[in-house]
Amino acid sequence: MRSAYIALVLLALSARPALPQGSDSSATAGIEAFNRVFEDATRRMDNAAIVQLWEEDGVSLLPSIPPLIGRQAIAAFIEDVTARLGGARMDTFTNECSGIEVSGSWGSEWCVQHQVVVMSDGRRFDAWGKMLLVLHRGSDGRWRLDREMWNQALAPGPPGDRG
Amino acid sequence: MRSAYIALVLLALSARPALPQGSDSSATAGIEAFNRVFEDATRRMDNAAIVQLWEEDGVSLLPSIPPLIGRQAIAAFIEDVTARLGGARMDTFTNECSGIEVSGSWGSEWCVQHQVVVMSDGRRFDAWGKMLLVLHRGSDGRWRLDREMWNQALAPGPPGDRG
Repeated sequence: MRSAYIALVLLALSARPALPQGSDSSATAGIEAFNRVFEDATRRMDNAAIVQLWEEDGVSLLPSIPPLIGRQAIAAFIEDVTARLGGARMDTFTNECSGIEVSGSWGSEWCVQHQVVVMSDGRRFDAWGKMLLVLHRGSDGRWRLDREMWNQALAPGPPGDRG
Repeated sequence: MRSAYIALVLLALSARPALPQGSDSSATAGIEAFNRVFEDATRRMDNAAIVQLWEEDGVSLLPSIPPLIGRQAIAAFIEDVTARLGGARMDTFTNECSGIEVSGSWGSEWCVQHQVVVMSDGRRFDAWGKMLLVLHRGSDGRWRLDREMWNQALAPGPPGDRG
């Protein structure tokens, strides 16, 4: 249970990256840029960047806890998680996203994540997860997280068999 | 673990209802109609109606299994689950959805579910879950599931504290 909680908490953290560029010529490119910055901020475990990536009224749906509604609630959760993790650091993080769809200022994609975190006592935490994201493009042209859900995945077996 | 698997499987089933009416005057009303039919089909555990609710290229993201990509894969999963459940029946099912957003032919909402299933041997299975849905409106005006993700929730504590 403890390792499951840590997984939840780390993957919750990982879902909140920094802002994409607003100057991309297409919405799909804008979301791809979002994904790159997301990955980068997650690797750095940069809470400030992560919180700024959320819409003011964003909703995060994580396993076995109530919905986190609003950027403020999400920020408080991230801070709590960070405090509990002490000196942990992200060793590797990959986030492969598929199926970008855009309609006006709304977009969606789904992703498969893998992360390895090294705890302050040297233990390694290795976890796979899946995410479904709903993104919103603000009046400044930047895509932000409006809704996210995460659940656990299995380590990959044969190609194409990732849970 | 067995009860967790059953929960997964039942809630996977529960995510696939029958079609809403295509004649609603607003997109929000169309999604609300979808939700009502979703609930009804889930209560009846009506696989045929459930499969027809999916887009041809729909993606279902359930915990600890690979993504189910396409209506055919989703239908096969539902059939497998039904076979494993034998004579189980849905005793109660509620699905409270929030935050309908619509842009053109795309929509999104998130839901908190509660279900009680009675197994063939009389055992009762009581589970809470959360869902994030991305819906698509076809050229026939009907909303269908394009993407769903599910994860576990906690039984409600004080009002507003449902995980």
